[in-house]
Amino acid sequence: MTRFFVAPEEFAGDVLELTGENARHARVLRLKIGEEVLVCDGDGHECLCRVTEAEPVVLEVLQRRDSVTESETRVSVYMAFPKADKLEHVIQKATELGAYEIVAFPSARCVSRPDEKSLKKKLDRWQKIAASAAEQSGRGRIPQVVVLPSYAAALERAALADIGILFYENEHATTLRMALEEKPFGSVSLLSGPEGGLEPAEVDQAAAAGLKVCTLGSRILRCETAPLCGLSAVMYAAGEF
Amino acid sequence: MTRFFVAPEEFAGDVLELTGENARHARVLRLKIGEEVLVCDGDGHECLCRVTEAEPVVLEVLQRRDSVTESETRVSVYMAFPKADKLEHVIQKATELGAYEIVAFPSARCVSRPDEKSLKKKLDRWQKIAASAAEQSGRGRIPQVVVLPSYAAALERAALADIGILFYENEHATTLRMALEEKPFGSVSLLSGPEGGLEPAEVDQAAAAGLKVCTLGSRILRCETAPLCGLSAVMYAAGEF
Repeated sequence: MTRFFVAPEEFAGDVLELTGENARHARVLRLKIGEEVLVCDGDGHECLCRVTEAEPVVLEVLQRRDSVTESETRVSVYMAFPKADKLEHVIQKATELGAYEIVAFPSARCVSRPDEKSLKKKLDRWQKIAASAAEQSGRGRIPQVVVLPSYAAALERAALADIGILFYENEHATTLRMALEEKPFGSVSLLSGPEGGLEPAEVDQAAAAGLKVCTLGSRILRCETAPLCGLSAVMYAAGEF
Repeated sequence: MTRFFVAPEEFAGDVLELTGENARHARVLRLKIGEEVLVCDGDGHECLCRVTEAEPVVLEVLQRRDSVTESETRVSVYMAFPKADKLEHVIQKATELGAYEIVAFPSARCVSRPDEKSLKKKLDRWQKIAASAAEQSGRGRIPQVVVLPSYAAALERAALADIGILFYENEHATTLRMALEEKPFGSVSLLSGPEGGLEPAEVDQAAAAGLKVCTLGSRILRCETAPLCGLSAVMYAAGEF
């Protein structure tokens, strides 16, 4: 079913009108009177609607409900700034895979660090990628893309989840499974490093902050593969599929 | 540790010499006498070696062993031909994630179908991508990229695994977990469709061939995301991490 994300102020009432980009999209789709569509507030709520006027599109709300495609487990993906378009790739894929949010932060070996000036523009672009992937994958929520100023800030925030995990290629004993089976969880943070990996001191710092240092298996994963592999596994472990 | 894949005939003996592309790579790396490297036959066997001569590189074999980075579970990724560079993406990532092989096949809604003429060249390229990803991720085996002529051939081959699974976005009841928990497994086939999905008749055909039709959760995954999500989850379920 076609899905539109609207601003909260457009989400109230028994009759909704599509505006701006959504109106343009509706025209392209040639929505017909009587057709059903979903309107989402991007924060986990949605309306099942029926088209009552085609031009401009006016919708009658049939049912308001919580989105049925959101995971009950909130998985936050923390990723050290990678090079070039890898962060965009991770934002798109992590959104499809049901991530609650994507958090980017600098670490010692990051080659790429967006400066203050370009960051605002980049964040806009990243958030749009998340919105587009959320729409395509049928999510009820657009994950927020968050940028933190320091590695320490990332650790502090990641440690607030029920289970905080750092993936490290030189860890061989503790598996993701061990970390997940320690206690029931409603929220999980998954943190991973940039192309050159995390420094041993950074890994110690993460452990001291309360994160579990885990392996993702005996193969070395690229920096853009590790978070998506971890996220897929956590969703499986959480009973999503 | 640096890892070189060599042809089987170069793998025998107590003293090995690097040739061709490997010799060039060794020069770039400026290997020093006394340094240790791994030489793999690409089929799960490896030699721990020490450099005894630097130019040309001659290696003394210290130990022969089975590769320690190969999964005991053989997971075959069956993917309907997607558009453009998506198959290359899946070959690279599935190799990192430990796939045993990657099998491409046509299905009814495939937009892209390489013709006979271009296929040989493409297969060479795909196999090189697998080799390069195997080297980078530290694998002991280069997964084979296989192309099958028909959907029926893919089903027949996929059904030979201990557990054969087809991911289908309209399946909601049977989860991957249910399929995996049915019996112990040493080999798993994961089959997924192209951009436009599989046709209902194709899904029936897969079920009739003995494949379990499973969901990967309530979100719609892109055709290049589904196999990698499934592979990550199976590796987690198999106790790899």
